[in-house]
Amino acid sequence: MTAEIWDVIIVGAGLSGLSAADLLKKRNDKLKILVTEAKDRVGGRTVTSEIPAANGVDRWDFGGQWVGSTQPHVLELIKELGIETYRQFTNGKKVYHTGGPDAKIRIGEGGLPASSLLGLLDLAQLYWKIDKLTATICVEDPSKSPNAFELDSMTLQTFIDRHAWTAEVKEQMAMANRPLFGMEPCQTSFLYFLMYAAAAGGLKALLESTEGSAQELKLKGGTQQLSEGLAERIGWKNVQLGAAVTAIWQDAEYAKVMTATNTYLCRAVIVTCPPHLAAKIQYEPPLPSQREFLTMNMPMGHILKFIITYKTAFWKEKGFSGEVVTGSSSKCPFNLTLDASSPYGSPALVGFIAGEQATEWSPKEFEERRDAVVSSLVKYLGPEAASFIHYGEKDWAKEPYSGGCPVNIMVPGALTYYHSSLREPCGRIHWASTETATNWCGYMSGAIQEGHRAAREVLAKLCPDALTQEDKEAAKERQTVKQEEPSKFSFLPSIKTLVMAAVAVGAAVFLAQNPDVLQNATTYVTKWFSNDQE
Amino acid sequence: MTAEIWDVIIVGAGLSGLSAADLLKKRNDKLKILVTEAKDRVGGRTVTSEIPAANGVDRWDFGGQWVGSTQPHVLELIKELGIETYRQFTNGKKVYHTGGPDAKIRIGEGGLPASSLLGLLDLAQLYWKIDKLTATICVEDPSKSPNAFELDSMTLQTFIDRHAWTAEVKEQMAMANRPLFGMEPCQTSFLYFLMYAAAAGGLKALLESTEGSAQELKLKGGTQQLSEGLAERIGWKNVQLGAAVTAIWQDAEYAKVMTATNTYLCRAVIVTCPPHLAAKIQYEPPLPSQREFLTMNMPMGHILKFIITYKTAFWKEKGFSGEVVTGSSSKCPFNLTLDASSPYGSPALVGFIAGEQATEWSPKEFEERRDAVVSSLVKYLGPEAASFIHYGEKDWAKEPYSGGCPVNIMVPGALTYYHSSLREPCGRIHWASTETATNWCGYMSGAIQEGHRAAREVLAKLCPDALTQEDKEAAKERQTVKQEEPSKFSFLPSIKTLVMAAVAVGAAVFLAQNPDVLQNATTYVTKWFSNDQE
Repeated sequence: MTAEIWDVIIVGAGLSGLSAADLLKKRNDKLKILVTEAKDRVGGRTVTSEIPAANGVDRWDFGGQWVGSTQPHVLELIKELGIETYRQFTNGKKVYHTGGPDAKIRIGEGGLPASSLLGLLDLAQLYWKIDKLTATICVEDPSKSPNAFELDSMTLQTFIDRHAWTAEVKEQMAMANRPLFGMEPCQTSFLYFLMYAAAAGGLKALLESTEGSAQELKLKGGTQQLSEGLAERIGWKNVQLGAAVTAIWQDAEYAKVMTATNTYLCRAVIVTCPPHLAAKIQYEPPLPSQREFLTMNMPMGHILKFIITYKTAFWKEKGFSGEVVTGSSSKCPFNLTLDASSPYGSPALVGFIAGEQATEWSPKEFEERRDAVVSSLVKYLGPEAASFIHYGEKDWAKEPYSGGCPVNIMVPGALTYYHSSLREPCGRIHWASTETATNWCGYMSGAIQEGHRAAREVLAKLCPDALTQEDKEAAKERQTVKQEEPSKFSFLPSIKTLVMAAVAVGAAVFLAQNPDVLQNATTYVTKWFSNDQE
Repeated sequence: MTAEIWDVIIVGAGLSGLSAADLLKKRNDKLKILVTEAKDRVGGRTVTSEIPAANGVDRWDFGGQWVGSTQPHVLELIKELGIETYRQFTNGKKVYHTGGPDAKIRIGEGGLPASSLLGLLDLAQLYWKIDKLTATICVEDPSKSPNAFELDSMTLQTFIDRHAWTAEVKEQMAMANRPLFGMEPCQTSFLYFLMYAAAAGGLKALLESTEGSAQELKLKGGTQQLSEGLAERIGWKNVQLGAAVTAIWQDAEYAKVMTATNTYLCRAVIVTCPPHLAAKIQYEPPLPSQREFLTMNMPMGHILKFIITYKTAFWKEKGFSGEVVTGSSSKCPFNLTLDASSPYGSPALVGFIAGEQATEWSPKEFEERRDAVVSSLVKYLGPEAASFIHYGEKDWAKEPYSGGCPVNIMVPGALTYYHSSLREPCGRIHWASTETATNWCGYMSGAIQEGHRAAREVLAKLCPDALTQEDKEAAKERQTVKQEEPSKFSFLPSIKTLVMAAVAVGAAVFLAQNPDVLQNATTYVTKWFSNDQE
C-alpha cells in the first residue's frame, strides 16, 4: 500500500483513458496522474500483432482498425503522432452470398449486386426511412428525440420486419448489423441503432468504405500505436500494467482505488473500461441504482476477427476486391472479408465472425473454425485460398478485461429510463469510453472524444484555471441539445410506400420479361444507389 | 485460510441455496456442506420485518410474500415446517385509476371496472391471444417453441402495440407488468414474458389473487421463516453470514471459493445469487463466453415495497378491499396497493412502486415519497388514510447483494442465443436461482425447485447412490421437452379479430345509446371475464 496521494487515477489504458491522461497533462503538467490497466498492454479494444506473412512477418490490427476522414478526434491524434494513413482497398469484384448456403453466389462490380430490382428498391426505401429518422435523433440525449419512446420500445428487428418488403433485404440488414455490433438486429433497441447512426453522420457512413465512412482509412503500423504514442507522451512510468481495479471507495476527502496488491488515494477517478466491466468493480458507497440498471442493460457484442496471409494477393489478380459478404450459415463462419494487404506488401484478408455466427462458431475448436474459414474462401475466391501462410484470429469474448467487442449496446428501454446516468459523475468518479461518445460512438474517435470530455470535467473540479477557451467551447457545444420538430413518420406503411411497392413489383414483372432493359436498369440503379465517390 | 475440504459450498442463503443444502443433507448427511451468504441474514429476496402497528409491533414481508396452491415446491416446504397460510383479503370495492392523474377514478366490485365495453372486449381478446401463445411455449427451452425467433425478436410492448385496440388496455398491460417484473413492457422479450406466464400455468395465474394464482395465500409470520426453518434444519453452523464470495477458481482436483477473509476448498459449488450478481464474481478459468453473454442480457427489475399500518382497517369499514390499481403518474408513486392486515389483527396496506415509477421515485427523499404515497391513499381511500401509524419501505435496488427485485428477466434475443447456458454447469460450478426455474419462474416456489435440481446434479456427481427414485424422476421429467405443433398464429390481424373489433365497436355505439342494456351487459361481461372462483 502506498501512502502517496494522486490527483487523478484513470482506470483503463485504452484510447479513452490515455487521451484523458494526455489532456490532463497538457493542461497542467503538475497533476499527478496514474493510469491503471488490467491487461499487460495498452490499447483496450485495439491491438496490433505480428504474424507470419509474405514479407516474413508483418503487423495487423486484430481490434479497431479503420478511421474515417469525418472523425475529428482520432484524426487529430494521428496527425500529432505523425502516423500515416492509407485507403481501404475496394477496387474489383465483390462477392455476395445471401439466401442460404445453397443459393446462387452473386458477383458485382461497384455497388450492391441485388438479386432483383425489387430488392434494390426495397433497400433504398428502407435506408431512406432510416436516414429520415436518423436525422431527427438528439444524440446527446436520444430520449429527447421525437417519438423516442416508440422507437426505444422496439428492436431493430421489429422495425425491419415492419418496413422491409423482401426477405432478401431483411437478411441484408442482419448481415450489416453483425460486423457493426457483433449482434443480431433483435438484440438492439431501434432508438439506440438510430443514435449510433446519427453519431456517425448517417447509416451510409457506418456501412461503407467510401470517403468519410467508417471503413475508409487504415493506419500504417496499426492502431495500437495511438495508445502507445499517448503512453509515451504521458510517460510509461505513469501507466501501471497488469493492475486490475477491484474496488473504488470514496469519502469526503479522497477516492481509494484498489487493485489486488495496491491501494491508491486520489482526488478524482476516471473509469474508462467498457460499462459491463465497470459494473464489476465494487463501489463504496454503492453507485446510484439508475447507474447499476444502466450497465445491466448494456450488453456487449461478440466478434471474432481473423487475418489470413498469403504469398500473393490472388484475389486482386483475378479482379476481386477481396470483399465477401455472406449471410448467416452453418457452413461459412464469417460474415465479411475485405482486403487487408499490408502497406509493406504482405497480401492478406481480414474477416469477421460476428453476432449469431460468433455464438455458433466461438465454442468450436480453433482448427475446425480455421478450416471452415479457408474452405469458404476457396468457395468464394478460388482454390488459391487454400494455400495460406498463416491464419491468426482473436475472439474478443475470450480476451480478459474486454469480454466482447466492439461496443456495449443498449437494449430496448435503456435509453428511455437510464440514459441520464451514462455520463453523470458519481462523486469523484467520472465515466468515459466509446459508449458515452456523441461523435462516432463505438469507434476509436468516440473513445478519444470521451477521454477529453472526462478530463475537462476533472479539470473543472481540480484546477478550473487550467481550462482553455477551446475546452470551454467543447463542453458548451455538447450541452446544446438538438431539438427537432416531431417528425410526421408513422409506422403504418404510407401511401407513398404502397405506391412505390406497387410500381416496383410491376416494374420487376415487366423487366423480367425484357431482360435487356433489366440489365441496363440494374446497372443504373446500382450506381445510383451505391453513390460511390471513388 | 482454512485447509479443510468441503464437499459442497453453496453461494447464497436464499431459498435456492438453503433448499439445495437441505436436499443434499437429506440424501447424505455425511456430506460436508457450507452455505456462504453475503448479507447478514438468510432469505435473499424474502425478508420479514417488525414495524409499529395497531398491536404494538407486528411482522410483514418486505420481499416475496405470496404463494399459490399450484406451487408444489413451496407448499411442500410450508407443510414440512408447519407454517400456517391464510388467504389474501380481496372482498369489497376496488379502485382503478387509469388515463392519467386527472381521469375519473373508477370503483368496482368483483371484476375489472372497465371504462367501456370495447375496453373489456379488447382486454379479453388480448388475453385470449396471449393465453393461446402461452400454451405453445416450451418452458424448459423456450427457443424450441413455435415461432420462437419471431416472439423473441420483439418486446412485450411491440406485441401490445400491435394487438391491443384501445389506449386503455395498452395502459392496463403496462400497469400489470410493473409489479410483476419491476419493469416496463418495452424492456422484456415477448418470448420471455410468455415463458414466465407458461411457467406459472398462464397469465391469469400471474395476475390474480384467486385460487391457484400468484397472490392467493400468505404465510403467518412471514416468508423469511422458510429460509430460517431451512437454516435450522441444515444447522446454523453450516451457514456463514456476511461472507461475500469474490472469486471461484477451479482445477482438476478442487474448486476454491474465496471471500474477503477466507478461501474454501471444495468438490462442487452451487451458485444461487441472482444472475447479474453471479456475473460479478471472478472465475478462473473464465466462464464460457455464452454464459457471460447470458448474464449481460438478464437485467434485474426495480421494485420498492411499502407497508403502511393503521389503527383500524378503515377501508374495509367503508366497503373497500384495499386494492388500488393506478397508471403511471408523477403524482402517485405506487402502482398497486392491497390489504395487508396481519393475521394477528394489525390493519395495514401493502404497496408497490415499480418499473418507471421506481425509476422516478427511488431517487427522491424518503419523506417526499412517503408523503406522496399517503396523499394518494387519501385520494383513493379517504381522509382516514392520513392517520397512519407507520410507513415502512424497502427499495430493493438499494439492498446490498440484491440490486433489484423481483427477478432477472431476459431481453430480446437472449432466449434465442444464450438460453442454453442458463442451467449448464461450468465444471464444478452449478447454477440455481428462481431465474432458472420451469415451475413458477421468478417466485419462491421456483427458487426451491432449482435448489433441489442443482442439489441432484451435485449428488449425481459426488454420490450417485444417494439419489432416490423420486430424484431420478424429477430429473427425467424436466428433460421431457414439450414439442408443440407450430401454431397458425400470425401477427397480422386475423379475419376473426377484425370481425370481433367491428362487432365490438358497433355494440359499443349501440349500447351507448341504450344505457340500461350497457349496465347489464357490463356486469355480465365483467363476471365472465374475471371468472372469479370465490
